[in-house]
Amino acid sequence: MSETKEEILRATYRVLCEDGFADLTMQAIADEADVSKSLLHYHYDTKQDLIVAFLERFIDRFEEELDELDADDPAERLDAIVDELLLGKADDEHTDFGRAFLELRAQATHVPAYREQLARNADYLQNVIVSTIEDGIEAGVFEDDDPEGTARLLRAAVDGARSQQITLGDDTREVVREGIEAHVLSDIRVE
Amino acid sequence: MSETKEEILRATYRVLCEDGFADLTMQAIADEADVSKSLLHYHYDTKQDLIVAFLERFIDRFEEELDELDADDPAERLDAIVDELLLGKADDEHTDFGRAFLELRAQATHVPAYREQLARNADYLQNVIVSTIEDGIEAGVFEDDDPEGTARLLRAAVDGARSQQITLGDDTREVVREGIEAHVLSDIRVE
Repeated sequence: MSETKEEILRATYRVLCEDGFADLTMQAIADEADVSKSLLHYHYDTKQDLIVAFLERFIDRFEEELDELDADDPAERLDAIVDELLLGKADDEHTDFGRAFLELRAQATHVPAYREQLARNADYLQNVIVSTIEDGIEAGVFEDDDPEGTARLLRAAVDGARSQQITLGDDTREVVREGIEAHVLSDIRVE
Repeated sequence: MSETKEEILRATYRVLCEDGFADLTMQAIADEADVSKSLLHYHYDTKQDLIVAFLERFIDRFEEELDELDADDPAERLDAIVDELLLGKADDEHTDFGRAFLELRAQATHVPAYREQLARNADYLQNVIVSTIEDGIEAGVFEDDDPEGTARLLRAAVDGARSQQITLGDDTREVVREGIEAHVLSDIRVE
């Protein structure tokens, strides 16, 4: 990806944090990236194209971060994945972005190109969690007769906790992390 | 509540289902309710006032439905609550409304009056689940040393599953319902 495109996508992130998704305009992104609107349109025909590129890069980064988690033991790795999903990026900047992401996600219900990116992310995450559980079963540290179902429950709980944290702003993430330990992780762990 | 106000709120629901939250205008609601825009503004000063009234009524109805669940035994009642939250209202009309609700909820991050309604709903639901678990402990059908934490996990899982169902449109709700049974409900049930 060219440096200009990188900067445009970084600027998109900053505008989303500052103004939210509803007020995201090509002009605001051009201003923030310090490029002309015509240069912006040269790289991205439409706002939707730009947002899809933004989502692609955002999800790629997220996948890289999960792949780089430093934990060899499957039980530790699953703990680290849940921590990353639930507690990672809890600072103000990420809360601002989380707000914009909720709006963007609501749009995905009528924009197939956004939905496609979110579905790719969901599939990736599902596979990472399932393969970690399966590795753990093979290594004798997990017992689980339905890794797919467990992964879906984990994804749903993490997702709901993040949304609640963003909309209601309480201590949901920490409390749900404990609930996941008490009812899901300790359930499948062989101890 | 006057019949006119009732009809305005019902019309708001229909417009939300049809057009989503982003395109909700006072004019569209007036047209749908078959009232003049000035009569609409007589009842609700601003769109935000109307949406708050809509949310109030919507949440009241939801609470009434949960209160009316027909199950005396606490274990059955908790099952019925989870079913209602996760599987209730799964038809097309409610999926359309679910989409609009995701948008509205994203707005709650910057509109305190919306957030207040969502927080009221979250508190209500938390209390219903906790008191059902506590009833079950007293009746000897549940064992749980952290009903608050269990309730938070259940709320997060249900919430995430509904959002994923709406944005990704797969079989999330049924799969997560099974996961909740396998890891949460069967965990606390004395058998």
